[in-house]
Amino acid sequence: MTTYIAPVREMLFAMNALAGLEEIAGLPGNEEISPDLVEAILDEAGKFATEVLAPINAPGDRQGNTWRDGEVSTADGFKEAYASFCETGWNGMPASTEFGGQGLPVTVSTAVLEMWKSANMSFSLCQMLTLGAVEAIAHHGSDELKNTFLPNMVAGTWTGTMNLTEPQAGSDLAAVRCKAEPRGDGSYAISGTKIFITWGEHDMAENIIHLVLARLPDAPPGVKGISLFVAPKFLVNADGSLGARNDLVCASIEHKMGIHASATAVMAFGEKDGAIGYLVGEPNRGLEYMFTMMNHARLNVGLEGVGIAERAYQQAVGYARDRIQGRIIGDKSGDKKPILHHPDVRRMLMDMKSRTEATRAIAYYVAGCMDRAKSHPDETVRGANQRRLELLTPVVKGWCTEAAQGVTWNGIQVHGGMGFIEETGACQHMRDARITTIYEGTTAIQANDLIGRKVAREGGHAMRALLEDMATTRRQLDGHGDAQMRHIGAALGGGMYALAEATDWLLANYDAHPQAAAAGAVPFLKLAGTVAGGWLMARSALVAFERLADSDDGFYAAKLITARYFSEHVLPEANSYRDAIVNGSESVLAMHEALF
Amino acid sequence: MTTYIAPVREMLFAMNALAGLEEIAGLPGNEEISPDLVEAILDEAGKFATEVLAPINAPGDRQGNTWRDGEVSTADGFKEAYASFCETGWNGMPASTEFGGQGLPVTVSTAVLEMWKSANMSFSLCQMLTLGAVEAIAHHGSDELKNTFLPNMVAGTWTGTMNLTEPQAGSDLAAVRCKAEPRGDGSYAISGTKIFITWGEHDMAENIIHLVLARLPDAPPGVKGISLFVAPKFLVNADGSLGARNDLVCASIEHKMGIHASATAVMAFGEKDGAIGYLVGEPNRGLEYMFTMMNHARLNVGLEGVGIAERAYQQAVGYARDRIQGRIIGDKSGDKKPILHHPDVRRMLMDMKSRTEATRAIAYYVAGCMDRAKSHPDETVRGANQRRLELLTPVVKGWCTEAAQGVTWNGIQVHGGMGFIEETGACQHMRDARITTIYEGTTAIQANDLIGRKVAREGGHAMRALLEDMATTRRQLDGHGDAQMRHIGAALGGGMYALAEATDWLLANYDAHPQAAAAGAVPFLKLAGTVAGGWLMARSALVAFERLADSDDGFYAAKLITARYFSEHVLPEANSYRDAIVNGSESVLAMHEALF
Repeated sequence: MTTYIAPVREMLFAMNALAGLEEIAGLPGNEEISPDLVEAILDEAGKFATEVLAPINAPGDRQGNTWRDGEVSTADGFKEAYASFCETGWNGMPASTEFGGQGLPVTVSTAVLEMWKSANMSFSLCQMLTLGAVEAIAHHGSDELKNTFLPNMVAGTWTGTMNLTEPQAGSDLAAVRCKAEPRGDGSYAISGTKIFITWGEHDMAENIIHLVLARLPDAPPGVKGISLFVAPKFLVNADGSLGARNDLVCASIEHKMGIHASATAVMAFGEKDGAIGYLVGEPNRGLEYMFTMMNHARLNVGLEGVGIAERAYQQAVGYARDRIQGRIIGDKSGDKKPILHHPDVRRMLMDMKSRTEATRAIAYYVAGCMDRAKSHPDETVRGANQRRLELLTPVVKGWCTEAAQGVTWNGIQVHGGMGFIEETGACQHMRDARITTIYEGTTAIQANDLIGRKVAREGGHAMRALLEDMATTRRQLDGHGDAQMRHIGAALGGGMYALAEATDWLLANYDAHPQAAAAGAVPFLKLAGTVAGGWLMARSALVAFERLADSDDGFYAAKLITARYFSEHVLPEANSYRDAIVNGSESVLAMHEALF
Repeated sequence: MTTYIAPVREMLFAMNALAGLEEIAGLPGNEEISPDLVEAILDEAGKFATEVLAPINAPGDRQGNTWRDGEVSTADGFKEAYASFCETGWNGMPASTEFGGQGLPVTVSTAVLEMWKSANMSFSLCQMLTLGAVEAIAHHGSDELKNTFLPNMVAGTWTGTMNLTEPQAGSDLAAVRCKAEPRGDGSYAISGTKIFITWGEHDMAENIIHLVLARLPDAPPGVKGISLFVAPKFLVNADGSLGARNDLVCASIEHKMGIHASATAVMAFGEKDGAIGYLVGEPNRGLEYMFTMMNHARLNVGLEGVGIAERAYQQAVGYARDRIQGRIIGDKSGDKKPILHHPDVRRMLMDMKSRTEATRAIAYYVAGCMDRAKSHPDETVRGANQRRLELLTPVVKGWCTEAAQGVTWNGIQVHGGMGFIEETGACQHMRDARITTIYEGTTAIQANDLIGRKVAREGGHAMRALLEDMATTRRQLDGHGDAQMRHIGAALGGGMYALAEATDWLLANYDAHPQAAAAGAVPFLKLAGTVAGGWLMARSALVAFERLADSDDGFYAAKLITARYFSEHVLPEANSYRDAIVNGSESVLAMHEALF
């Protein structure tokens, strides 16, 4: 099994060339950000990922968590790693400075978070959930809630969870049944069962702060009657010390295909006299509050796709460099060479590499939009970046995680028979990756958000603005002196044409034929991801071409080849998606249900 | 978890409409085959699959095998199921009558084998390996070997294995190092280590008959110095009774991603004074003998793709019919309906259904070629079918198993969060399917066989003959009175055009640019599978259209919709493959190895 080495140079390239780090470093509030500081942060994070988190990834997968009488013991080494993670300040790093975070730009923290996901996806989920809870409380909670919970959560002494799903309420949160009854002292008694609660119970932190969706007694039905509560595992005394155990318990943990080292809990609230909880913000606005935070969580799950793809790629390259097998076709030397030289192994590695880079490109690009949408002094620029961020959030979540499926699958295939043996390490990446297209909203949920809220109901303006930016890149490529660059431009043009056609079809059909539009939603998301990824790869190629002479280690030459691979092997998929969207809805919808 | 119900009507349709069962039943040697008999066999086999094999599939996955001191205990229920499997005659069913089999046409036994693979892939592997060993001994062994081993192997009292792989010799069998020294009495002393030996050790049978590739002392290096031996776990006395334990032992079993209930053994031969083995056929022709048998095994692994896809589809449809979640877009009734009605769930189910049917179509069609190649009285017809069989064998192995990856993946996705929970049952199908693109030759090995031996070195005649048959179907569709049928014809035409272009490119480049050709090998295999699948789905549509009035239960209407889905959603992928082959080789090969 190979270890994980953070691809710092790749990350810096995406941050600088695509996300616009220089501009972001110049925004108000980012005065302390310098290229040296960013590189130093990435180097340090990379070291922590390699030395502390990566080594316990495979053992954690094998051992998993142990549930006993409501308590969960994490796999060996996780407690120690978490303590060190918090001590060195990594836990709160992306949080705002107000409660002890470092307030780094999202563009920078995105690269650091990618490392945690690559090194140990199970481990990284604890921080992701904690920071999501921090964000929800920070944006919508009272000062009392903020002061009581946030400093410890940012420090990591306490962790956070999101209690949304119930057995009958998965993608459809309107069906939530958990109850919250006023206790007369301003607090609420929460009761009901929540499932699929990531890091819902564990032994790494002193307290666990649960955010819970529940209904007040007089709440209207459906999504407009759901409120958000904070319910800590241990109640907190007025002086901040831990008080009584709250009436909430981990009833069991799930036996899953992957992410074994992160406990997925069934949480039972109020089996005695009600779990004490505190209302966040106003009643009945819980879902709205959750969504503020969920958009960021969706970007972070998209980033899991990038991280796990990178890890699978490193594992596969390592094996392909070492393993000697068979004669290389067309090789006259007669030497025994590693399988890296077999054309089909190269094809798989190039496919893994180019899709990993393209998903990183879009994830970091959108992080840049987030920074500009928040801090740019010009309101027009803030607005444009906010619209781009909203358009691409479901694409980052959906497309990056879908891409990781094929990448981790190829990661096994490169190993041949050894790939199927668990000890080799390639299986875990594919098993871990499998959850990413499901949680925080399945690919279909993302796709419906994309075609509805983000394209059709918005009149397609945000998508047209994106296509215009792509056209600018295309013009640069079309007029380029280098034939290879013109080829990349032509392939981008083909993808843009397919995306524009599908967008027109969607705008024309969304209201009149909503089922037909929904039948093409996932192909549309994949089409948008493929073309946006192709656009950013093309931009990378333009930058790399200019810098070819700057470096003699081949970094920019590799960037060009990778962009070209993407344009020749991945971008042509855009046409199949377009065909499926524009011509394919009837055959999706025609079958009588009895005939399946 | 749903049970498995054999899709007998689907199977009969593929056998009759595509494989040509009526013609096959009329071939010499098949006199006893009648439509009633075939249906009765499938019904009985289906019952056995549902009642005996399917129920122990998930428990077998959870429990796996236990290794202790060289002995392997199978999961609970396997011994009893295997005893019943042999008693009822299912084990030897596909074998020739000479040694106790039923000598059924391959077309019929293929459908039965698909059921075992669907119901319990781990279990089915034992029979598959045994019958492969039977075939090798029957074709190449002496009468003594045949009489000593075959009756018990066909009956299933003894099982068989294939010992090919060694740590340094996987895809490249030229690197085999196992030794065989003459013992002076006509037998040989075999020594060495073999890995990845499926059902290499277990407790279901009285004896295990290992076929082993090894080198004689004077053997030339490489593939031309490998001989084939039979080495039984227990030596067999002259009277047929079991004698001494042979010097071969299961040193350990692997911890795999899937097929947990089938032990994958490391076999140590000759750790004391050599395992006694008997030469099969002539010295140094072992690899050639293995390949006779391996071609049939490859078709059977392709069929595993069909079987596991069918099982995953049934599991997903069952869940989609039961699970109620969310409002159906565009549905004005306001009723709560199962998720089967969500357009994207339909899309996934249609995708699973159409790919499963297309892979079944090609697997059964090739089984029909096998029957005609063997028994047709007209030599020209035999020859044409043999060439078609050879051309499509790597396609059945490669494309059907690759298709099963997406189908079993979607099988999880349809379940949402529940799909990731092992107890639901969807994960196992995806984990089990993962091995099928690796063993019996990876997809790349199949693809190299296809582009080399089966297309380029043969001058492309077999592929052109296939394209001509497709053109006949296309003409029928183009001239059809129904617009839907003409659409299917147009889509088939697009696919054929892509396949013809890629074939021309391959013929022009294979000798001059062997690495470029190999870079496109896997896309070429997928292209060939997609277009051949599309052709057979189009033929299905023609037959179904004629019979629409024959049945009022919608079976033929469903066939038409499924064929149309395939033509609109799957066939367009042909163009991406063509693009990757024709334009994409340089970017596969360009990267310096240090830059990966």
